[in-house]
Amino acid sequence: MSSASESHAQFPALGVCYYPEHWPEDMWEADAKAMVAAGISWVRIAEFAWSRIEPQRDNFTWDWLDRAVKTLGDAGLKITMCTPTATPPKWLIDEMPDMIAIEADGTPRRFGSRRHYCFSHLGYRAESRRITQAIAARYGQMDAVAAWQTDNEYGCHDTIYSYSAAAKAGFQAWLADHYGTVAELNKAWGNVFWSMEVGDFSEVELPNLTVTEANPAHNLDFRRYSTAAVVTFNREQTDILRRLSPDRPIAHNYMGEFAQFDHRPVAADLDIASWDSYPLGMLQNMQSYPSANTERDQKTYADCMRTGEPDFQAFHHDLYRGMGRLWIMEQQPGPVNWAKYNPVPRAGAVRMWSWEAIAHGAELVSYFRWRQAPFAQEQMHAGLMLRNNEPAVGLAEAKQFASELDLLDGADTIQAPIALIHDYEADWISALDGQSDDFAYLPLMLDFYRAIRRHGGSVDIIGPHDDISGYALVIVPCLMHVPDSLAHQIEHFDGQLLIGPRTGAKTIDFQLPKNLAPGPLASVTGVTITRVDAVPASQTISVSDDEILGNFKIWREHVTAQGTVLAMGEDGYPAVIKSNRTSYLAGWPDAALANNVISQAMQQAGITTHEMPGYLRVRQRGNKLIFVNYGDQMMTIPNSFSGTFILGMQDVPPAGVSIMHVDS
Amino acid sequence: MSSASESHAQFPALGVCYYPEHWPEDMWEADAKAMVAAGISWVRIAEFAWSRIEPQRDNFTWDWLDRAVKTLGDAGLKITMCTPTATPPKWLIDEMPDMIAIEADGTPRRFGSRRHYCFSHLGYRAESRRITQAIAARYGQMDAVAAWQTDNEYGCHDTIYSYSAAAKAGFQAWLADHYGTVAELNKAWGNVFWSMEVGDFSEVELPNLTVTEANPAHNLDFRRYSTAAVVTFNREQTDILRRLSPDRPIAHNYMGEFAQFDHRPVAADLDIASWDSYPLGMLQNMQSYPSANTERDQKTYADCMRTGEPDFQAFHHDLYRGMGRLWIMEQQPGPVNWAKYNPVPRAGAVRMWSWEAIAHGAELVSYFRWRQAPFAQEQMHAGLMLRNNEPAVGLAEAKQFASELDLLDGADTIQAPIALIHDYEADWISALDGQSDDFAYLPLMLDFYRAIRRHGGSVDIIGPHDDISGYALVIVPCLMHVPDSLAHQIEHFDGQLLIGPRTGAKTIDFQLPKNLAPGPLASVTGVTITRVDAVPASQTISVSDDEILGNFKIWREHVTAQGTVLAMGEDGYPAVIKSNRTSYLAGWPDAALANNVISQAMQQAGITTHEMPGYLRVRQRGNKLIFVNYGDQMMTIPNSFSGTFILGMQDVPPAGVSIMHVDS
Amino acid sequence: MSSASESHAQFPALGVCYYPEHWPEDMWEADAKAMVAAGISWVRIAEFAWSRIEPQRDNFTWDWLDRAVKTLGDAGLKITMCTPTATPPKWLIDEMPDMIAIEADGTPRRFGSRRHYCFSHLGYRAESRRITQAIAARYGQMDAVAAWQTDNEYGCHDTIYSYSAAAKAGFQAWLADHYGTVAELNKAWGNVFWSMEVGDFSEVELPNLTVTEANPAHNLDFRRYSTAAVVTFNREQTDILRRLSPDRPIAHNYMGEFAQFDHRPVAADLDIASWDSYPLGMLQNMQSYPSANTERDQKTYADCMRTGEPDFQAFHHDLYRGMGRLWIMEQQPGPVNWAKYNPVPRAGAVRMWSWEAIAHGAELVSYFRWRQAPFAQEQMHAGLMLRNNEPAVGLAEAKQFASELDLLDGADTIQAPIALIHDYEADWISALDGQSDDFAYLPLMLDFYRAIRRHGGSVDIIGPHDDISGYALVIVPCLMHVPDSLAHQIEHFDGQLLIGPRTGAKTIDFQLPKNLAPGPLASVTGVTITRVDAVPASQTISVSDDEILGNFKIWREHVTAQGTVLAMGEDGYPAVIKSNRTSYLAGWPDAALANNVISQAMQQAGITTHEMPGYLRVRQRGNKLIFVNYGDQMMTIPNSFSGTFILGMQDVPPAGVSIMHVDS
Repeated sequence: MSSASESHAQFPALGVCYYPEHWPEDMWEADAKAMVAAGISWVRIAEFAWSRIEPQRDNFTWDWLDRAVKTLGDAGLKITMCTPTATPPKWLIDEMPDMIAIEADGTPRRFGSRRHYCFSHLGYRAESRRITQAIAARYGQMDAVAAWQTDNEYGCHDTIYSYSAAAKAGFQAWLADHYGTVAELNKAWGNVFWSMEVGDFSEVELPNLTVTEANPAHNLDFRRYSTAAVVTFNREQTDILRRLSPDRPIAHNYMGEFAQFDHRPVAADLDIASWDSYPLGMLQNMQSYPSANTERDQKTYADCMRTGEPDFQAFHHDLYRGMGRLWIMEQQPGPVNWAKYNPVPRAGAVRMWSWEAIAHGAELVSYFRWRQAPFAQEQMHAGLMLRNNEPAVGLAEAKQFASELDLLDGADTIQAPIALIHDYEADWISALDGQSDDFAYLPLMLDFYRAIRRHGGSVDIIGPHDDISGYALVIVPCLMHVPDSLAHQIEHFDGQLLIGPRTGAKTIDFQLPKNLAPGPLASVTGVTITRVDAVPASQTISVSDDEILGNFKIWREHVTAQGTVLAMGEDGYPAVIKSNRTSYLAGWPDAALANNVISQAMQQAGITTHEMPGYLRVRQRGNKLIFVNYGDQMMTIPNSFSGTFILGMQDVPPAGVSIMHVDS
Repeated sequence: MSSASESHAQFPALGVCYYPEHWPEDMWEADAKAMVAAGISWVRIAEFAWSRIEPQRDNFTWDWLDRAVKTLGDAGLKITMCTPTATPPKWLIDEMPDMIAIEADGTPRRFGSRRHYCFSHLGYRAESRRITQAIAARYGQMDAVAAWQTDNEYGCHDTIYSYSAAAKAGFQAWLADHYGTVAELNKAWGNVFWSMEVGDFSEVELPNLTVTEANPAHNLDFRRYSTAAVVTFNREQTDILRRLSPDRPIAHNYMGEFAQFDHRPVAADLDIASWDSYPLGMLQNMQSYPSANTERDQKTYADCMRTGEPDFQAFHHDLYRGMGRLWIMEQQPGPVNWAKYNPVPRAGAVRMWSWEAIAHGAELVSYFRWRQAPFAQEQMHAGLMLRNNEPAVGLAEAKQFASELDLLDGADTIQAPIALIHDYEADWISALDGQSDDFAYLPLMLDFYRAIRRHGGSVDIIGPHDDISGYALVIVPCLMHVPDSLAHQIEHFDGQLLIGPRTGAKTIDFQLPKNLAPGPLASVTGVTITRVDAVPASQTISVSDDEILGNFKIWREHVTAQGTVLAMGEDGYPAVIKSNRTSYLAGWPDAALANNVISQAMQQAGITTHEMPGYLRVRQRGNKLIFVNYGDQMMTIPNSFSGTFILGMQDVPPAGVSIMHVDS
Repeated sequence: MSSASESHAQFPALGVCYYPEHWPEDMWEADAKAMVAAGISWVRIAEFAWSRIEPQRDNFTWDWLDRAVKTLGDAGLKITMCTPTATPPKWLIDEMPDMIAIEADGTPRRFGSRRHYCFSHLGYRAESRRITQAIAARYGQMDAVAAWQTDNEYGCHDTIYSYSAAAKAGFQAWLADHYGTVAELNKAWGNVFWSMEVGDFSEVELPNLTVTEANPAHNLDFRRYSTAAVVTFNREQTDILRRLSPDRPIAHNYMGEFAQFDHRPVAADLDIASWDSYPLGMLQNMQSYPSANTERDQKTYADCMRTGEPDFQAFHHDLYRGMGRLWIMEQQPGPVNWAKYNPVPRAGAVRMWSWEAIAHGAELVSYFRWRQAPFAQEQMHAGLMLRNNEPAVGLAEAKQFASELDLLDGADTIQAPIALIHDYEADWISALDGQSDDFAYLPLMLDFYRAIRRHGGSVDIIGPHDDISGYALVIVPCLMHVPDSLAHQIEHFDGQLLIGPRTGAKTIDFQLPKNLAPGPLASVTGVTITRVDAVPASQTISVSDDEILGNFKIWREHVTAQGTVLAMGEDGYPAVIKSNRTSYLAGWPDAALANNVISQAMQQAGITTHEMPGYLRVRQRGNKLIFVNYGDQMMTIPNSFSGTFILGMQDVPPAGVSIMHVDS
């Protein structure tokens, strides 16, 4: 990410998403005043307003937006202005109908909702620059415009991968650039395997519509290319914004659970890594995760239906904080409209989610949206205000949160003792590698993350190219390809390391490494993996030292070990192997095993562990410990924590928040 | 519907569907005699015979059909002649290949089965008129031809919505006609929401192939347009038939559970609202209903696998009787071929279904088909005769039914004390509005309907524009949009009213009403709805007054009430609110709650309630109470009924029928 | 099949699949020597090597393959050379893009994996002949080349049915040839049913994209045509191979559970009926079988997750042995990559599978593949060697198997006492006939087959046109159409006959027979079938004589019987009917009923029955009884077997093998 000169004194703060184009102009001023009265200081606008800004080509109707900006600014609100490229208007699509994306099955993705464009389409890229230039030129230097957002939710509705002619041309050029010769490409992909060799880059097809699965290396490169297309699209906007609107930080609003592009290179061109947090909708989505069929998952679902999965939001806060200044650009304010089921949040949940974001380092919590829209696709999505302009339940909770924010007293996020290495390519490679319908990267990451949090740990989530120095414990749950630079860092690392299954399982070209080890971590782990046992989640393999520690599920590696075998599987193969400061876990641990292995690793790293009851969670921000309770039962903060409560108390009610001041 | 001059004296009667073109001509006469001997007086023919009537363009081969009509007529049978437009022949499709419908995903729906046409295609519309003209001119005035059927099962195999170029042109014209200007359309749809505004009617796309869901208002208008296309198609046929075949009533055969077009405007051009009743196939279909996963549903399935869902047939009899003279144009006579599973009916079920149809006001029960066809798609579908021309089990049951019909002794259907308001648009709007994968309109209607029937009530099902005067109790389970005319009727209504969830939730343009109330029923209900809690069927909310009355499931509204709160939800919001004569039920009731609320409403309306055991059901026709037992156990008619048994007795065996003469 | 002059003295033997093009040339010689050292004498090569043989059109690069053949041959290995037509190279697809297959929904099946061709495409057929000619001319007479394989796994990835223009033209020509006139076609298909009559063969469409299901007779003929296309494609290769490489047997490698083409006419042009046996992957596939939801199935799954379904491999060995000399062209050597889950095999399983193949008459067990490939689609598929060229677990088991083979001592397969009649068209017809989502042909066949094996029986699986003389018992589980020739054989058959449900249910034109009987088996069975009761697998009908024998599931026929009723259903209809030497079973038996009926039939046929415990199975080869244990518990061979153990003993461990010498 770019460094930003922006002063942070104005944070933490509350924001809101607002659509002046949806409401009579005579409501704007009162809306702005009500926002300010609620403690809101930021307002995001215009991300879907293209058809009102430019109803026909080159016929710009700025007047209404000028007045909206003035009204909001005059009320003292800072504006996050957006480029409106997520919703190109109909006349533009009609001018160049081939700008839309094509699905893997060949179906066009047409006008009529949003995100109807292909990142690879050069014509639309030019239009993106043109409208960005126009809006930045008009508003870029206005005082009220204090930040930018590029586009909106890149990839929402599965819009990263397009199988269009434009994408094919772009992919072929990217490959030519990357490989130089087709001989290199054929070799890297192993195209000899099924006579898939190509004689020229122009012969390369997109990896869709093949008779059976395409070469996974082919697919991996297509995903890399697709990320590159997003990076280019985004950078073309940021280049213009930085030129025409200097000193304003630029954000993009990412989403939860979304991994179709690598966010890190996109984030490198931005200042702010914001995301849109909808805990209840995401809990519903998680029910379709491949391994979400256990009793534990069902219990969590029932217990947390009105608060969300207890570790999901925190994970994403930590994930995106690793890529820039953390904003919550859209925070769920009440029931939403788009999930399979859309329950009402538990009383207090909106405040709790807000505090949790702050605990994890957020500068801004911005609610989506100010007032419920009575029309179109999201009419059933709650706002802070009801559609009749009376306050909704969420507004009172936001106000309470605003009134409590001073308690932070300058406490700011510091480096955590634990780093968890996360990688988008690892997600793709594990999916493309197959072997098990129950294996999925995010649930595996969450299982490791949850075990740390169940022991009170604060975590930084970092990428495979980030600096690991300064951490007491680095956990690598599943890094399918280990870059040499990380292997080099690890060799010189003096903290504790915990390496999980499939780490180092592939070369950069999606080949198996010549050795049978975790790639370049062969010597540091001292393990050799001779076979993989991919069993359904229902068929576990128990792991024990003197007593049973838990089970492997879904994924189990048969290994030989040079280090000390700390635990064995019932199948007769080592399960946990310790070699100097590095532990290797040869399978996907269930909750019991993860709890055992990770609490032990924390203790070996000198990190105090706490037994967090139920769905109680904690995160440290500076000298404040912020506790939240996702469950439906009152929970008591363990006595192992010591400090002074400045908000709440030791007993945390459902959806409650307690804050403890600590001296450290 | 048109009023028909037809005398009803010939009814109730038995009919059968017959395909002379499937059988050697030398069998026809014996077939006709056997029909008459079985008590059958009506025969339907020719709905799939186009390729035999006109094997090449303008080469009509009427001779065989002339002889078939004569043979049947000479035997004393009345003929329901059909227009053969459901199966245009191959030469016609080859002449204009673009007459076929296109699926939402862009796939063409080709020749090779039936219903391979698009209602919007002007060329096929001309052909429909041409063949209707030809067949009506030839047979319209023959004595034997006593009624007409247009086409066959409009919409079967999901054929209402076509995404063809013809449909697009038709839709655009319909919109232009309806809205006048695109500004009006943009406003009505709320197209500003995602820059979806259009500059000209020619820019409007069909609502398919969008990146995510299209604007629900867009979808709703497309459904309205699609209904208009069916109405036009049908009316073009009825105009010709009324001209060339005066004084013959015209029917169309609707289907069970089918709601893709609004049947009421189609019915307005017809005399007879017939439907095709296949209880066992429909029971199988119902297993895929979103909420059909409870223990109760599974028990009903096992208990009723050989009789059908106990309220499904009755519901449809009442539904279609509300749109015209009721005929059962196709009555299941034995196992069918098209459901997921196709069990043999319980002994007696064919007779029971026939009597139940009569109980609900049917004039005619016409079995499908006379003799099992040994070839093509439906060869495993039973007939009254086996394919070797021996009688099937169903024939004996039909004969028994025929022999018992005189017991009716002129009893005819009269207005019921209870009206249930049903609306096709409510079905569409609730589906398009989303919020819950478990919400579906028909199951909700059936839950209300079942509770009435579980208390012995007889019901008329009426549309939102029908007259409600004369009813003691009007139930509105879920009328998503309440027309002003109905609101006006309700204001002046002096009976009891029970209003269910989501009623009045939308304006005619698929927007949320400005108030937070059930639209125009704000003052009559006295409730304000501030939030909606859409939870999975497995997560219920209990409702109690002094004791627990039952639960809300799937849908729960958080309301504030001006009236008397009769019951509260465990979530702290009112559940049942009474305001003068109007009760509002703020959620989808489970069986216990529905039973409590509806029996109370019946009693308040002065309607005697009976506790119907198991799957025993009753319907009144004039001075006759007709009892049927859908279950697999003998059931005893409650003593609360008093009268004289003229068929069967107080103990009704499985698939049995009892008829009681009453004095009222 | 053709008779082959090949001496069989070299068998049984071990083989392996090898890809010299995947490895540096300097590894080949050591690989060859290691194969020989492991006891391997056959090696299959080149089936995916087209892009290396002919990198551009007419630019043949034989040199590397020449050297590979020489290296392997010099090591003493016999080579099975393959035609590489399963993977045409990119330049060829680019020359004629319409050579690819089209899916039923209209989607093209493009280059990028394998099998990207349409069997009907005349241009590709010419290419297939050209490359076959080239490779056969070069290698056909070399000493080392001892056998041929045509193409690879016809139909893999559902590639038999193509809905291309080429397929349409081919189908129309085939119909014209078959029917002569469209009048005949219209009559045979019953096209009058829904006005589906055609006026010319050129009007016939492919049976896809119809509004609802196409005429099943239309579909059946399309399947027959598709088989004819495979036969032609394969025969064009065998004609060339027989001419240019005389005296080498020709094989094709079929697959398990695959029935999209009729294998018997293809096999008629081949010498060897080989198949690719992957027990663990197939067990995973079987979990999606319609009726695989019972507790028994779940237990088998858990017990046999590491060995496979106990009767699946044996069934296929017996099936393909009925079509030619039996080879296992690809034998699973460890975990594979393509199933939903891919567990590690139980220790010993590779040896057990190998011995089981021999027990069922295999000449060759050829492992797939020599060494794990570190790239492309199958990189996670185990080989006998790890990718770092150390031995995998499977190699030791193969070596053990090789060292034990002499124990056979010349024992060779002889005619079994029991024949099971299997028919690919019966599979198609039962699927096309519908009536039940739970009915599937292969599970039904396996239920009959399993019951025989549970009683120790050895079986030949034969086709409906094969000779039944010499068998003591012929079982016909479900022969939807009974050819007259078989009916004639049965009339003169003097053994016991057991006929199962749906046998004779259709004429050759997919019509119901005029009589209500099992077609031409009317008099021999003496049953009349008046109705079919198709219920879900969860709703069974019990069957008893004096006591309950078991249940019918899924399919039940209501019959009247002229013979002796041995058992009745609880529904009041006969269940098992005996007429002279013929038993008719009027439904799909569950395990208990199948065990009862089949053990009785075996005893009546004079065949000794044994109660095989658990998953222990036995098959006789000459004077050797070979026992295998698929379960996870030690099992004891029943004392009813008498003989001398020459391998293993009476207690057979999990994945163990025992061999008993018997005198008979």
